[in-house]
Amino acid sequence: MVDILHRIGVTSSPDEVYGALTTVGGLASWWTEDTDGDGAVGGVLRFRFVAGGFDMKVLETRPAELVLWEVVDGPEEWIGTQVRFELKQEDGFTIVLFRHEGWKEPVEFMYHCSTKWATFLMSLKRLLETGRGEPAPDDVKISNWH
Amino acid sequence: MVDILHRIGVTSSPDEVYGALTTVGGLASWWTEDTDGDGAVGGVLRFRFVAGGFDMKVLETRPAELVLWEVVDGPEEWIGTQVRFELKQEDGFTIVLFRHEGWKEPVEFMYHCSTKWATFLMSLKRLLETGRGEPAPDDVKISNWH
Repeated sequence: MVDILHRIGVTSSPDEVYGALTTVGGLASWWTEDTDGDGAVGGVLRFRFVAGGFDMKVLETRPAELVLWEVVDGPEEWIGTQVRFELKQEDGFTIVLFRHEGWKEPVEFMYHCSTKWATFLMSLKRLLETGRGEPAPDDVKISNWH
Repeated sequence: MVDILHRIGVTSSPDEVYGALTTVGGLASWWTEDTDGDGAVGGVLRFRFVAGGFDMKVLETRPAELVLWEVVDGPEEWIGTQVRFELKQEDGFTIVLFRHEGWKEPVEFMYHCSTKWATFLMSLKRLLETGRGEPAPDDVKISNWH
């Protein structure tokens, strides 16, 4: 099992970061505009992109601390993996420790997803700090795989 | 052992990408301006940042295909790890498969380095596609750890 790891710091409160991770409006403003569903525990969030998408079941949420999803539909490599956002405060930043865990193999698609997650987390940071993120379909393109 | 993985595509030739990975001038234009040393096999490249730096021994190079370094000095967690850039052509892009391999533990610093590598690889892409990268000290800041 292999994981994708990232860490960013945002100059907003943990509550604001948590809101951007648990509400459809927040998620649609940094990951993909085509987001719907229910961000509460037990709910399913549906994220759609030009080339497909992901359905995430919300496994656990702790205000200002943790959001944990399990991928229940999407690319085969993603199904059953978990996406974890841990929040903490440090030096005036809200730190987001991100982990997309449980990949079976380090396939090339995982290399791609690792870099895409970084650009989307920077979009989350930008949203919170400037009011404007870069969600799909106007997300930062990194390669032929978009 | 855990690895950091990334994948970007650059609309430049493999030779141009290879040049940006093996020459001091190329490396200084996307990673850190304070770069010197020797990018040929057996040489040591020295990369310096405000808060420290890395010395990389060049283990292997294959024009337009591969660059492999071993970290011989720097933060304790980095020493002995390897940094690998594999190049290939696909759909009119030069694909860079990046791997920073051999971390002993997924410590928080590894989360940080994973995201920083993504932003530096995007700097490499920007350098090659626009003529101007974002090397340190004017690199993209991602958190309290810079």
